[in-house]
Amino acid sequence: MNNPDFIPYKPLEEFSEKEMKKHSSNFFNSIKSRRTIRHFFKKQIPFSIIKNCIKAAGTAPSGANLQPWQFVVVSDPKVKKEIRIAAEKEEEAFYHDTAPDDWLEVLEPLGTNEVKPFLEDAPYLIAIFIKKYTIDSQNRISKHYYVHESVGIATGILITALHFSGLVTLTHTPSPMKF
Amino acid sequence: MNNPDFIPYKPLEEFSEKEMKKHSSNFFNSIKSRRTIRHFFKKQIPFSIIKNCIKAAGTAPSGANLQPWQFVVVSDPKVKKEIRIAAEKEEEAFYHDTAPDDWLEVLEPLGTNEVKPFLEDAPYLIAIFIKKYTIDSQNRISKHYYVHESVGIATGILITALHFSGLVTLTHTPSPMKF
Repeated sequence: MNNPDFIPYKPLEEFSEKEMKKHSSNFFNSIKSRRTIRHFFKKQIPFSIIKNCIKAAGTAPSGANLQPWQFVVVSDPKVKKEIRIAAEKEEEAFYHDTAPDDWLEVLEPLGTNEVKPFLEDAPYLIAIFIKKYTIDSQNRISKHYYVHESVGIATGILITALHFSGLVTLTHTPSPMKF
Repeated sequence: MNNPDFIPYKPLEEFSEKEMKKHSSNFFNSIKSRRTIRHFFKKQIPFSIIKNCIKAAGTAPSGANLQPWQFVVVSDPKVKKEIRIAAEKEEEAFYHDTAPDDWLEVLEPLGTNEVKPFLEDAPYLIAIFIKKYTIDSQNRISKHYYVHESVGIATGILITALHFSGLVTLTHTPSPMKF
């Protein structure tokens, strides 16, 4: 394996204790106003904002720095509709058939159900995929490591970036996830 | 299950497109300066900063909002030393015995090895645990859902919060993780 090109580290501006306290407190106060939102304005949002947030997510640490993620942004109304139909079919089975009672019980106060208009209303759907390995030009498979942890961290940065950009998000994990 | 107390949602201040672009770009430019750091100053950092960042992590979305995480902060030098000894023992076995060659190959350009002084140097170690279920006062077990995704997202917010507070982090995943 060739050595990758590293970008030299430029240390952060050093904050005083007082500044660190202020910044950590400001960060908490902003992020605690974040909610998982199920109702979206049908409003156009410039793609450059989404792109900046996904680029931010791509700076996440990852197992052996292999960056085992793929973000797919969907804005085409036809594709969003197809995703909604497929998701609602799975979710209908989940809520009315396959979900264990104790799972439904903890979901009950949240008032969620199988109807997912947000999958069409939101201007963008971001499908996040875990890449368990890559295949190079010689068909050699390279495994990735700590993929769930790495992609989870990247997703946390993505949600935070979108929040600080003034956008709201819904973290939707269809069951089964591979639907 | 009783209905939990919800905190009413206060919508975000609405940003103009121009502001959203600016905020997303500022966020990306800051977070892209983050690096995973293996050398720490042996410097005291007020615990309140760490606490704010963990509180920020605890605002993460989670499966059925069950918040399946536990953050344990270690600052006692004796406990840090014990953790270093135990981690180095596992890592020695990993680097010299159990790690498959292709894993070592992708780690090679990063220059990591089994020597982990940072586990003693860093003022705080934050051990992050996944809680797969809770047991209530009547000994009833309640399962949690999407625990890896939820804890990953919370960890992403934690790393971001620490970065924005002016601190550096190392995301260390000992192998085996349950060491």
